[in-house]
Amino acid sequence: MAAVDTSLQQRATGAAAELAAAHRAEQPLKLYGGWFCPFVQRAWMVLVEKSIPHQYIEINPYQKAPEFLALNPRGLVPTLAVPMDSEGKELKPLYESTVVCEYLDEAFPDVTKFGPRLLPDDVYERARCRLWIDHVGSRIVPAFYRFIQHTPGKPYSIADVRGEFHTHLKTFAREMDSGGPWFLGERFSLVDVMLAPWAKRLFLIDYYKPGGVGIPAVGERGEDEQVWARWEKWFGAIVERKSVKDTWSEEDQYIEAYKRYAEDTTQSQVGQATRQGKGLP
Amino acid sequence: MAAVDTSLQQRATGAAAELAAAHRAEQPLKLYGGWFCPFVQRAWMVLVEKSIPHQYIEINPYQKAPEFLALNPRGLVPTLAVPMDSEGKELKPLYESTVVCEYLDEAFPDVTKFGPRLLPDDVYERARCRLWIDHVGSRIVPAFYRFIQHTPGKPYSIADVRGEFHTHLKTFAREMDSGGPWFLGERFSLVDVMLAPWAKRLFLIDYYKPGGVGIPAVGERGEDEQVWARWEKWFGAIVERKSVKDTWSEEDQYIEAYKRYAEDTTQSQVGQATRQGKGLP
Repeated sequence: MAAVDTSLQQRATGAAAELAAAHRAEQPLKLYGGWFCPFVQRAWMVLVEKSIPHQYIEINPYQKAPEFLALNPRGLVPTLAVPMDSEGKELKPLYESTVVCEYLDEAFPDVTKFGPRLLPDDVYERARCRLWIDHVGSRIVPAFYRFIQHTPGKPYSIADVRGEFHTHLKTFAREMDSGGPWFLGERFSLVDVMLAPWAKRLFLIDYYKPGGVGIPAVGERGEDEQVWARWEKWFGAIVERKSVKDTWSEEDQYIEAYKRYAEDTTQSQVGQATRQGKGLP
Repeated sequence: MAAVDTSLQQRATGAAAELAAAHRAEQPLKLYGGWFCPFVQRAWMVLVEKSIPHQYIEINPYQKAPEFLALNPRGLVPTLAVPMDSEGKELKPLYESTVVCEYLDEAFPDVTKFGPRLLPDDVYERARCRLWIDHVGSRIVPAFYRFIQHTPGKPYSIADVRGEFHTHLKTFAREMDSGGPWFLGERFSLVDVMLAPWAKRLFLIDYYKPGGVGIPAVGERGEDEQVWARWEKWFGAIVERKSVKDTWSEEDQYIEAYKRYAEDTTQSQVGQATRQGKGLP
């Protein structure tokens, strides 16, 4: 999903660089990614959560490798190269981060080898998870981009976009298991994965936008004390989750990378769609 | 997803009225729907395809029944009431048509009773289906609304929206099994279900928009002869599919119902989001 800006650092740094280096060797299953892209981070997190053997290949968005474009002519990241045989001679592509994540959970179901499934076995609970994954993708994520790309020239105020963003977060937090820390309670799931990359990027809104994320302080939340407390419990847990930290580059790299979002001059597909007021691509 | 216009016919007519009447009796599993809504039609089709015992309840969007709003305070259709026990004393809601459809396929897996599964068993093929379901929802459906809601005052021409719509249809048709008639070939699937309601409504664009859907005639398609032929094979099959026809009201009711879309004055959520150039809600 990420066509990115030309001045961008072209490799992962920090913990993500170490992870990428540890998965440089040839493997039948390959993730083509970009360190910067939150949609990639979702898929990368699932590979880490489940310890799935894979090869990580960083894609330079300005010089996309021919074998990558041969696999997926759309050139989107994340793209997963899925082996159709044990040696990986025939590879087929998957993309769209939600599809890739659910695929990885289904294709590596052995809990003794790959840990707990990331969607519940119960059919209703699984559907409910998909419902809230949809809320993340169709409500929270677009509102994040409208927020960080807000500039004084917009026909709506930053208070409007902040309010919209808060509303979607609170709706989500109200659906969380009351105990926590995760959406389903003790059990970590794809619902947590789906929002994690944007939770981890919230500091960019504090950095770039006047008033920042602006969640009210304890004692000043009126009816929302409980829901914001639940949000903060989840938030505190997710930013410290190992799979989130392992797939995270150095913080100043994100500050640099998101400058064009904050100025609303990014040429990324997500950024352009947001600027044009369209749905995300 | 459908908040609809006040002058709308409030009940299904034609075949859909017969189907609704046959499913009026109390059942633990309930579909709250609106005859007019294409998102509802997706869920309704799956109930028909799999012969799932259910109760159909038509929702009057201006007087939403209290028990419906108690179940799903968002008041969206389709909403599925899912029984948590065999008598249906405890009901939980599901909504979002893609979530509802996949739930129904998973919750009624017995092929001897409910016919073939609507998503493939093969993990990769299942993921590929989800990828093209995503294409329908994120590309084709929004382009359908931009097309039917196009008016001369828009900052883009009807040729632009027609071109965009054609592009998304062709991308979809190129992914179809070459034999057909369905997306997966001989096997009918959720991919077919997801697009069926809008395929069935294409005649409204011919009715209301100058130049209509405008798929080029045979012999005038240049490089696209094969892809349009494949589209037409699928289209011809889907509009005649029993589950599509059984959930279809009288044609003139749709013409009446879509008048406000064609004039771009609809107050439906989908219509307003399209008018504002936003992603679909």
